[in-house]
Amino acid sequence: MQRTVALVRRGYRPRVPGPWGRSQSSAAAEASAVLKMRSERSPRERILTLESMNPQVKAVEYAVRGPIVLKAGEIELELQRGIKKPFTEVIRANIGDAHAMGQQPITFLRQVMALCTYPNLLDSPNFPEDAKKRARRILQACGGNSLGSYSASQGVNCIREDVAAYITRRDGGVPADPDNIYLTTGASDGISTILKILVSGGGKSRTGVMIPIPQYPLYSAVISELDAIQVNYYLDEENKWALNVNELRRAVREAKDHCDPKVLCIINPGNPTGQVQSRKCIEDVIHFAWEEKLFLLADEVYQDNVYSPDCRFHSFKKVLYEMGPEYSNNVELASFHSTSKGYMGECGYRGGYMEVINLHPEIKGQLVKLLSVRLCPPVSGQAAMDIVVNPPVPGEESFEQFIKEKESVLGNLAKKAKLTEDLFNQVPGIHCNPLQGAMYAFPRIFIPAKAVETAQAHKMAPDMFYCMKLLEETGICVVPGSGFGQREGTYHFRMTILPPVEKLKTVLQKVKDFHIKFLDKYA
Amino acid sequence: MQRTVALVRRGYRPRVPGPWGRSQSSAAAEASAVLKMRSERSPRERILTLESMNPQVKAVEYAVRGPIVLKAGEIELELQRGIKKPFTEVIRANIGDAHAMGQQPITFLRQVMALCTYPNLLDSPNFPEDAKKRARRILQACGGNSLGSYSASQGVNCIREDVAAYITRRDGGVPADPDNIYLTTGASDGISTILKILVSGGGKSRTGVMIPIPQYPLYSAVISELDAIQVNYYLDEENKWALNVNELRRAVREAKDHCDPKVLCIINPGNPTGQVQSRKCIEDVIHFAWEEKLFLLADEVYQDNVYSPDCRFHSFKKVLYEMGPEYSNNVELASFHSTSKGYMGECGYRGGYMEVINLHPEIKGQLVKLLSVRLCPPVSGQAAMDIVVNPPVPGEESFEQFIKEKESVLGNLAKKAKLTEDLFNQVPGIHCNPLQGAMYAFPRIFIPAKAVETAQAHKMAPDMFYCMKLLEETGICVVPGSGFGQREGTYHFRMTILPPVEKLKTVLQKVKDFHIKFLDKYA
Repeated sequence: MQRTVALVRRGYRPRVPGPWGRSQSSAAAEASAVLKMRSERSPRERILTLESMNPQVKAVEYAVRGPIVLKAGEIELELQRGIKKPFTEVIRANIGDAHAMGQQPITFLRQVMALCTYPNLLDSPNFPEDAKKRARRILQACGGNSLGSYSASQGVNCIREDVAAYITRRDGGVPADPDNIYLTTGASDGISTILKILVSGGGKSRTGVMIPIPQYPLYSAVISELDAIQVNYYLDEENKWALNVNELRRAVREAKDHCDPKVLCIINPGNPTGQVQSRKCIEDVIHFAWEEKLFLLADEVYQDNVYSPDCRFHSFKKVLYEMGPEYSNNVELASFHSTSKGYMGECGYRGGYMEVINLHPEIKGQLVKLLSVRLCPPVSGQAAMDIVVNPPVPGEESFEQFIKEKESVLGNLAKKAKLTEDLFNQVPGIHCNPLQGAMYAFPRIFIPAKAVETAQAHKMAPDMFYCMKLLEETGICVVPGSGFGQREGTYHFRMTILPPVEKLKTVLQKVKDFHIKFLDKYA
Repeated sequence: MQRTVALVRRGYRPRVPGPWGRSQSSAAAEASAVLKMRSERSPRERILTLESMNPQVKAVEYAVRGPIVLKAGEIELELQRGIKKPFTEVIRANIGDAHAMGQQPITFLRQVMALCTYPNLLDSPNFPEDAKKRARRILQACGGNSLGSYSASQGVNCIREDVAAYITRRDGGVPADPDNIYLTTGASDGISTILKILVSGGGKSRTGVMIPIPQYPLYSAVISELDAIQVNYYLDEENKWALNVNELRRAVREAKDHCDPKVLCIINPGNPTGQVQSRKCIEDVIHFAWEEKLFLLADEVYQDNVYSPDCRFHSFKKVLYEMGPEYSNNVELASFHSTSKGYMGECGYRGGYMEVINLHPEIKGQLVKLLSVRLCPPVSGQAAMDIVVNPPVPGEESFEQFIKEKESVLGNLAKKAKLTEDLFNQVPGIHCNPLQGAMYAFPRIFIPAKAVETAQAHKMAPDMFYCMKLLEETGICVVPGSGFGQREGTYHFRMTILPPVEKLKTVLQKVKDFHIKFLDKYA
């Protein structure tokens, strides 16, 4: 690759003689003389530079794939080239990427997807009838019976119906309307689309978007892209990262001085913090949104990932309806789900949906218009979403295997959540709240003053310095807390619990050893 | 669906009694009294309305899926309900959606995709070895050997290598660097990402983006979303929709009064206009971009769709390199390709790539950062892109069938392009330039003064009025020229040539009959 670039830089001579000398327009002929004089010079200034680019894009940060991950990539290349390190592989615990960590796909999901992809397989005796039934249903709803056709911009009709039926079951009968369901390219796409529609105003009336701190950095990134105003509310680390409505009140009050707070984002179960909101807390949040006239965004992509026996997932939609018509007829809510997390971990398909409640009919029209510009979400991702909301049921051929696979993944995650909490809390200078849900630990780490000074001398956030050292010395790639936001003077990192149990134990032991050595070195 | 909504509006009573009465916070208790007073009132004002929404999103228009297509959907529902019409089906000739029009997927592509989706099939004797080889190679490059893992934000490495090799072959040896290849979610995503990075400045220094008129409305939509300035240059209808550099000069000169023209978008082969640029014209454009310091965007998604025997596709990249180092070291270019068009027509997979030339290294970093916020393009779409750039070669088991299928699709399109041009030009009051490439006719239609007046009385663009009547009377759905832009006082529509030959003949005959009747009615 380097060689090719060098070739180009030195001025590539095409095999076919360029016709530039053959058929010149008069303007071109004039230019040709100028060019002869210039061709020896160094390349001229670029049009698109850090100075000239979109400043909002420049301001975007996204730690989950930031500098630490680039460094991890470099180290992997060095290992491949045989360079000796104190470890033999990089362990990417920076991102919730289940299959990359060895989790096997759910067989039924992939069978349906294969049947949809290559319908000749519908004649094969090697595929179960329930998988074929679902594949036929999806294909019948696709133009020309092909996954290769564009779908409606809002998503395939019958898949939206299946999503609505799933939500109704999940929420104990609270009805869902397929017309309120929009299939998306992963949850990230849905979240940024809704935020894009919501942002308006200038100066002090610019839209403020309330997000938790710590947050998942998609939020801060999109807020920056859209030039909206980020309004932080802090989760209570002393109280298992619970959300406190008084803190929401403080945040909105202070924000009103410099923007128009219009949106409240909630991540439940929490990312990176792993807390699962109580029903009472959700009621309080909904009441607060009602009172303050805030549009609610409920990021519920970890709805299947709840591990603590004393926690349960409650959807915002369900609680909203159970609070009665004053709330359920008024509070505007968009909630998000995805194929990427849960027990299926199908990140690569970029499947997801959002459900909107109380969206103004004219805004629904605007939303469809906006979505139509990018035509439709990937139809294969839509099909994957369908299997997630419409899995095998008791009595169907594939049910037993499906349940076994699903429970194995979720059971293992629960085990690893407990293991991680317990082991981290045995390390002096590390404190880890219970991982009630999602798939991350976000432990608080003590960084000694001398290490903080050294980091500052390197112009690095102290937790970035810590994570870089951890990566360099152990090969373990985690994301510094500063990438998610944290209270001034506190330090954390986010680590996934996705590696297989035995590997996770090794990882935790290595972090422990590293941490003790680190404390010692900078004591 | 209607029933469910009604249920909700009347105030849904959940099966489980709402805990709102059980465990109220004090703030909630206070509110409860207020609520009792309010609960009989009509819903309060929404937060998100046409007035409060993002005005740039509100300004977006996207005709290809606009009002005419909504109307087509309504008519389809009416037909399903047994309502009598002068036709039995709606023919959606509004969008380049090949499979929806009955085109069959390329077998080899779907075989590789099925193998990647459900790797158990790698043991099946029913799949050819060359397909298995490609599937294995793709899976080996995916985390955990699964399409379900996130890829690198820039796309799977080995697929980017295959894209670079394809470009090098296509361009007769001009080298391509995998590091300059970014896989995308269809071409639309790549185009909007690059434009997003390019837009900056305020007032008279706001970025101007030059686009052809007629254009593909993705461009105007994204320009509106980004609040950039649209700078129109007109294609020359009298000259087979050729691009004339003097018109570019006029456009840029006039634009400089009110914005900073920084980007020049070219669609070649043209959409909706179907012209294929001559090599001379591309040279002139590149020279113009060099001279005026414009960032070039080359939308080349129809590169395989060239039908006129006297036309050939020349990539901007190749011509740029053959013009010598002053150009090839300086002109900044992004070019786009897609799985959705060509002979494969795999729109639903949302696969695509862009190649960037002379992008500043710091901007490459910014681009990867921006892409990483949405994690990665759909990996199944990336795999589809891989098969497009790395198809069976002579000597491989699947070569013969692949070539047969590919040539059949392209041969048919060429036939239909000629047929459409010829038939339209037999109709009085319709003039159609040759369909040199792409997959659309964009005929000019004469609309009598009385029809123009009637349209204006209905507050409709005259060509929208015409297309609505065409739809209502024949079931044929085409897009009015006003959705793409056209010279004041001229009227057109865009129609795909994707229906099978016999059906297309019927469609053309129906348009002819309709047009003659229309002229007669409004004479």
